[in-house]
Amino acid sequence: MAPPSEGGADALLPDLPKGPLQAYRSRASFCWKELALFLEGEDVLRLKKTIFSTLENDPLFAHSHGEELCLEKCRELSFLRCQRLLELSFLSMEDMVASPLLVQTLIACLGMYDWSLGLKFLLHMLTFGSAIYSSGSERHLKYLPKIFNMEIFGCFAVTELSHGSNAKAVRTTAHYDPTTEEFIIHTPDFEAAKFWVGNMGKTATHAVVFAQLYTPGGQCHGLHSFVVQIRDPKTLLPMPGVMVGDMGKKLGLNGVDNGFAMFHKVRIPRQDLLNRTGDVTPEGTYVTPFKDDKQRFGASLGTLSFGRVTIVGMSIVNLKLAVSIALRFSATRCQFGPTDGEEVPVLEYQMQQWRLLPYLAAIYALDHFSKSLFLDVAELQQGLAGADHGARQAELGREIHALASAGKPLASWTAQRGIQECREACGGHGYLAVNRLGDLRNDNDPNCTYEGDNNVLLQQTSSYLLSLLARHIQGGARVESPLRTVDFLEAYPDILGRRFTCPSVDSCLDSAVPLAAYEWLVCYLLRESHQKLTQEKRSGSNDFEARNNSQVYYCRPLALAFLELTVVRRFHEYTHQPHVPPGLRAVLGRLSALYALWSLSQHTALLYQAERRCSCPGGRDRPSR
Amino acid sequence: MAPPSEGGADALLPDLPKGPLQAYRSRASFCWKELALFLEGEDVLRLKKTIFSTLENDPLFAHSHGEELCLEKCRELSFLRCQRLLELSFLSMEDMVASPLLVQTLIACLGMYDWSLGLKFLLHMLTFGSAIYSSGSERHLKYLPKIFNMEIFGCFAVTELSHGSNAKAVRTTAHYDPTTEEFIIHTPDFEAAKFWVGNMGKTATHAVVFAQLYTPGGQCHGLHSFVVQIRDPKTLLPMPGVMVGDMGKKLGLNGVDNGFAMFHKVRIPRQDLLNRTGDVTPEGTYVTPFKDDKQRFGASLGTLSFGRVTIVGMSIVNLKLAVSIALRFSATRCQFGPTDGEEVPVLEYQMQQWRLLPYLAAIYALDHFSKSLFLDVAELQQGLAGADHGARQAELGREIHALASAGKPLASWTAQRGIQECREACGGHGYLAVNRLGDLRNDNDPNCTYEGDNNVLLQQTSSYLLSLLARHIQGGARVESPLRTVDFLEAYPDILGRRFTCPSVDSCLDSAVPLAAYEWLVCYLLRESHQKLTQEKRSGSNDFEARNNSQVYYCRPLALAFLELTVVRRFHEYTHQPHVPPGLRAVLGRLSALYALWSLSQHTALLYQAERRCSCPGGRDRPSR
Repeated sequence: MAPPSEGGADALLPDLPKGPLQAYRSRASFCWKELALFLEGEDVLRLKKTIFSTLENDPLFAHSHGEELCLEKCRELSFLRCQRLLELSFLSMEDMVASPLLVQTLIACLGMYDWSLGLKFLLHMLTFGSAIYSSGSERHLKYLPKIFNMEIFGCFAVTELSHGSNAKAVRTTAHYDPTTEEFIIHTPDFEAAKFWVGNMGKTATHAVVFAQLYTPGGQCHGLHSFVVQIRDPKTLLPMPGVMVGDMGKKLGLNGVDNGFAMFHKVRIPRQDLLNRTGDVTPEGTYVTPFKDDKQRFGASLGTLSFGRVTIVGMSIVNLKLAVSIALRFSATRCQFGPTDGEEVPVLEYQMQQWRLLPYLAAIYALDHFSKSLFLDVAELQQGLAGADHGARQAELGREIHALASAGKPLASWTAQRGIQECREACGGHGYLAVNRLGDLRNDNDPNCTYEGDNNVLLQQTSSYLLSLLARHIQGGARVESPLRTVDFLEAYPDILGRRFTCPSVDSCLDSAVPLAAYEWLVCYLLRESHQKLTQEKRSGSNDFEARNNSQVYYCRPLALAFLELTVVRRFHEYTHQPHVPPGLRAVLGRLSALYALWSLSQHTALLYQAERRCSCPGGRDRPSR
Repeated sequence: MAPPSEGGADALLPDLPKGPLQAYRSRASFCWKELALFLEGEDVLRLKKTIFSTLENDPLFAHSHGEELCLEKCRELSFLRCQRLLELSFLSMEDMVASPLLVQTLIACLGMYDWSLGLKFLLHMLTFGSAIYSSGSERHLKYLPKIFNMEIFGCFAVTELSHGSNAKAVRTTAHYDPTTEEFIIHTPDFEAAKFWVGNMGKTATHAVVFAQLYTPGGQCHGLHSFVVQIRDPKTLLPMPGVMVGDMGKKLGLNGVDNGFAMFHKVRIPRQDLLNRTGDVTPEGTYVTPFKDDKQRFGASLGTLSFGRVTIVGMSIVNLKLAVSIALRFSATRCQFGPTDGEEVPVLEYQMQQWRLLPYLAAIYALDHFSKSLFLDVAELQQGLAGADHGARQAELGREIHALASAGKPLASWTAQRGIQECREACGGHGYLAVNRLGDLRNDNDPNCTYEGDNNVLLQQTSSYLLSLLARHIQGGARVESPLRTVDFLEAYPDILGRRFTCPSVDSCLDSAVPLAAYEWLVCYLLRESHQKLTQEKRSGSNDFEARNNSQVYYCRPLALAFLELTVVRRFHEYTHQPHVPPGLRAVLGRLSALYALWSLSQHTALLYQAERRCSCPGGRDRPSR
């Protein structure tokens, strides 16, 4: 095993303490420091070390394991810690812009400590703050220093009691009054109350509120966002006309004060419309650089993607923690053995390995995907900030939106199932609160829901793929995208003609094999989904019905398989590139193969069915074009 | 639709309040009161009504939704409620013996209210109490009235810190001292501390303690159980030599005080050995009616089965509650629609139906299985109480043990997955604590672990089936069992020769079709498992290795498929019997088909693989005998 090739590794990565895990650790086929350096790089490792040692040495961040905190206290502590974080200022605004991966690292470290803190910080700085920065204009820059020094504390209010997934249908209104040059923010009834808004329950002073914008004369211009002050920053008492409160206990994340708000004709200055995609003149005329509502909506996809990509990373953090706990337990817990007197670590059992090791591999593959997609989003946002409205930028936005909309479901579900498996794999000890698997499960759970229900989000991805195919079939357009994730689909008739042959089991232990199978599977599902939709419409379904009736067995597996393929492909390429250190090639290759094969094996039934359809006489073995 | 055929239905089942669910309810194809009467019977419905109205009218049982209770308070409340339950005495000892289903109903009702209460009651009355009643003898009857009036409060201590699944390896000792006619109960070290014992943390005064029995001279006679006083009933202070405490916060069930205990040479009278399966004379000679340790252990399987069967019922209660919440929400929550202005209930979406309705069907099928198996266990226990040591009784014990050991995994996993699906299907609202899905998930979770980890338990079932096959192959013994769950295996060569043909999709909407497929599947998995084990041993594995290496892909699916088959068969027969009221036949038939097809569809990949193995040239299409 080669020693770490870069200097400073030992300072950044001190040796692990000797203990009961030593026996397993000494059997590793690779140098863990070399792996950490290769995967993370020195800058990230240094930031991690800084954050963790700072938190460890500050009594405000002392964990109170075993001690019971009431809801009120949980929320207060998170708020105080968030305040301290902003004082500590691990990353400057310049660092954040220069190195998106450091932003992701900061979020991950805070989440490893406690997601309630991580989320409060994220919601204030990167959701509220970014919304103002990226949806507003020069006139809103005045808010930024106040965000950084926590003079104001923010939240982001889209969801209403009766509208979550269907965000476009929210019913809060913003009527423009030219006589005073103000917008009147109003909640028509309780079902239109803003709901679930993180930080709104107790602590936020300002909210970015999404409302339907009306100009004088009554024309509605669709959803826009507004900065609305909801509390007095000194007293935290609600502003006049604002009824705001806390939603109470949740299944997890109880350090975050999710809240609701109703607005009774609250007047705000015209300038507090975030006007990047549309503005109202003092006289009350609506102006927008976009041709139609749809295009305007398209331009805001980047912001949605950021949220979803962030959740991919959050989910992986949770899975990392859970799998570490379960594997360490399994390596030291002994139970049963070949003879009555002798017991073996449960990690030695095929069953325990089968339960846990695929999730270990999933962590590495999804973590790499998460980082690479985070960089893609950063590129997209820099283009948007530079006001790039070119065709490539629009295509990139659509592609990233498709990847993020299936990436969030895949990562959050993998983590949720993995954490449950870890909980069970630790037996009774996994059920003790102090061992943290419950918090991880409870804190990961909303990742399946927020920024869009997983099953609903998957439709965005399948629609993207189906629209590419339709353009190809109807107009002969090439199937291609800026990040090249869909380019293989251009050759779908050839790919569907491929047949899998397995010379030996050993030959399958390379992720290239499942990768090829995934390409076939995605082509097959895309063709089947297209045919199903066409057939539904032919038999009289309208668009809405046709789409709904094609989800379960067609579009849903299509979206998931496409995303899995993308994860597998990116990790395969990453682990097989020439500059992988020789001492790490074997272990990274095994992780890549294990994730790809395990993931593909969940589609075994579909592969058998597909093979039968494609090969039996009268079956559909020709492309449908 | 016929009105309820029995009188009194309206008094027992008052009409449901009119509300937003009315629209769906009025579209039911059957009379719900008729269904309730058919499934439950008047006695059960009456007991339910009594229990619920009593709890509703007693302030001690008022739920404190939204209010936060600290751990201490949760535990105190559960204890006080348990005390009140014993005063209320919904069922007398005679009722319990006469009608086991009423016992199951009582447990279910308490669980619907709150599993912490249900479990405290169950652990005291039916685990501690039953252990004394069924493992003890006349000299222990003195404890029973004290249990009924809660003069003493009990717990059941098997598990130790380092031994859970491998219960036979627990290390607490009980040395007999003939000079004082006492046993000396002792914990050799911290790893042998009793652990996880429900009721032990704060409230139990007495424990049934499992320990290795040693007679003078040092001979060990294996695990036996002893009644040990651990606290003073007046002060609740620990008895001399007993170190006992609470384990702290768990992921759920925080009204139950799980505890640990270490015994430092605690002396108890000789008579407090529970001596049904083995006793020690005053002079120190060990006597037992059983020939060997194995036979003695076999006789105690009935008690283990009772625990597991109870958990089947507990899991179904949790799934019932979760699915009711999610379906009611789905019927009233509207989101999206064919046009912008019109939204439809999410229950109308194919996706939502696909997510939830199979779990609705699973409730009915598993609930029937749970009741029927509870009656089987009651029959077994009555036989044991009557000291029936006949061959049929032993066979019945083995069969029920096999059913309970896979029934608990199937039911607890189905519930755990179903509750998570319900949580997600309710979106953000499912994440609010007040909506209870979190408590249900957290309280159901340990069902996957206690009374044996699910994956470990499944081995009991596969071992049972494999031993029947081995006896058949080696000695030509008939494959049969008292409850006839395995009798079809006698014809396994014929069954494996069957091929599935599907004349039409409609023809598959009868549970007879998946039932036949399940028989084929179980025969196939049994043969494959047998061959795998044989091959492992041939290639030099010892028993331990051979078994371990055959779990994941052979024995585990065998045990699950066998149990699913049994559930499907029992529900199919129940729903197709002649006395099913005509108005219920259609809906029960659909539930039976849906559960069977959904359940079978999880094995689709296996069915394809099996078909290929059985039909390709050179494949194994002949029975292996």
